[in-house]
Amino acid sequence: MDLGGCLYHPAVAVSEHRYRRRVQFADTDLAGVVHFSWIARYMEEAEHALWREAGLSIVPANGTLGFPRVAVSIDFKAPLYFEDEFEDWVRIDAISTRSIAYSHVITKGDITVATGTMTAVCVRKGETPMRATEIPNHILERLAVRK
Amino acid sequence: MDLGGCLYHPAVAVSEHRYRRRVQFADTDLAGVVHFSWIARYMEEAEHALWREAGLSIVPANGTLGFPRVAVSIDFKAPLYFEDEFEDWVRIDAISTRSIAYSHVITKGDITVATGTMTAVCVRKGETPMRATEIPNHILERLAVRK
Amino acid sequence: MDLGGCLYHPAVAVSEHRYRRRVQFADTDLAGVVHFSWIARYMEEAEHALWREAGLSIVPANGTLGFPRVAVSIDFKAPLYFEDEFEDWVRIDAISTRSIAYSHVITKGDITVATGTMTAVCVRKGETPMRATEIPNHILERLAVRK
Amino acid sequence: MDLGGCLYHPAVAVSEHRYRRRVQFADTDLAGVVHFSWIARYMEEAEHALWREAGLSIVPANGTLGFPRVAVSIDFKAPLYFEDEFEDWVRIDAISTRSIAYSHVITKGDITVATGTMTAVCVRKGETPMRATEIPNHILERLAVRK
Repeated sequence: MDLGGCLYHPAVAVSEHRYRRRVQFADTDLAGVVHFSWIARYMEEAEHALWREAGLSIVPANGTLGFPRVAVSIDFKAPLYFEDEFEDWVRIDAISTRSIAYSHVITKGDITVATGTMTAVCVRKGETPMRATEIPNHILERLAVRK
Repeated sequence: MDLGGCLYHPAVAVSEHRYRRRVQFADTDLAGVVHFSWIARYMEEAEHALWREAGLSIVPANGTLGFPRVAVSIDFKAPLYFEDEFEDWVRIDAISTRSIAYSHVITKGDITVATGTMTAVCVRKGETPMRATEIPNHILERLAVRK
Repeated sequence: MDLGGCLYHPAVAVSEHRYRRRVQFADTDLAGVVHFSWIARYMEEAEHALWREAGLSIVPANGTLGFPRVAVSIDFKAPLYFEDEFEDWVRIDAISTRSIAYSHVITKGDITVATGTMTAVCVRKGETPMRATEIPNHILERLAVRK
Repeated sequence: MDLGGCLYHPAVAVSEHRYRRRVQFADTDLAGVVHFSWIARYMEEAEHALWREAGLSIVPANGTLGFPRVAVSIDFKAPLYFEDEFEDWVRIDAISTRSIAYSHVITKGDITVATGTMTAVCVRKGETPMRATEIPNHILERLAVRK
């Protein structure tokens, strides 16, 4: 039985990831809390960590594809403060041939900090105008929609 | 008739603002375009510029209020590149006693770069947990919902 | 022998820390590498991690002091790329009654990415103009100059 | 007399630039002032504005060169606050065949906020490891060392 082709594949495709992070000083603003744009960045960090867990990189060496966001939506429920440790639970909501939709829940202990959704499309690098293209199979087979 | 109290009031309350900006190097990412989190920051910059046009500051000296975002939603239509000059046309969609809803259209010449909405609520600084409070009259009378 | 008073003190004052970090997407710029301003932020993150290792926070709850930087100097030797894992080795070079001087060496494996120095002074929060004040003893006794 | 070839050349090479900017909300941190890393970014923005005044872009279309910083040194004298308007006076201190040294003075009215120096080298894009290369003549002839 030849398992060679599976060497870099996770046994089960990844559909979610729990990303942990600490708030850094430069993430805060004069209101004393994390600036809202950083919540969006945390969500992107979590998404890329999900890809790494799946054995993938969103920017592989010599890659010819990119995955820009086409839609972002965030509800802010409670502030995060300097040095807070929090978790972003990112899940794959939907996968089409050209796009992936993620949902995020950021929590600090029992507190829900923010919830959000992001949709990224697959594009060819350097193509102008950007145009959605098909996500390759070696990526599709490592990612799965959450149950 | 004493108009002294109106000295700092615009003749007509402000309901929209066209904010112009140039893309800076640090706004870009390895994909060669503006990072999506910067689009959200541009929208916040435009909102604060609208307040300045209305004779207001979102952070006045000795102020006791803050206006954190509770919801942000953005659709990304086309990329922005280094040194691009663009415009964010921000308009006030709705004003309640405790919150203000803005809509944004970012364009570069004829190209629509992004559209979005943001809702900010009025809170007392330093109150934990944050809780929406009433927007003072001297602010309400300078801002108006777009027609 | 009463060790109660030492409960929150490290057995030996901290004089250095090795901070590990991964490059995130938003840290990069259109040149495909980490933007130079992020190298400075990594150094600040490492400094704050050193404080945490010493049982301290640079921004403790109800704190009345701040530690702004008065001088920063960085030499950039080699680029960092997306998803690189690197280390910032931060050491305390000097401590005076009102300031702390740190040196940093950022490495990725065998490669030196950057070296730098930063000097922070102790100030009272909200004082205008900012003026150096004495670093409290409970901080001084947990930090030590490297040998 | 044919002046066509001079169309894009400034009559006199540019050796300095006064860059004006307003502090944005996202530039601040929990200490209520501009985060130190933003002072470095303002200096880079000023440098690129100097290039534009000289009829140049640091990232021209289809360009094959980059100008990464190899050294940065900043002294912070006074804080900048939200909505402050300030000026970065950037001057070219030295030009060699492969590098350019800039000095910066950031002021807000009569107050000196920060002074700094930055040195950028000319490199070929995508070359690994990065290696200094000669600055092309069409750039050298538009930039001049300050008197």
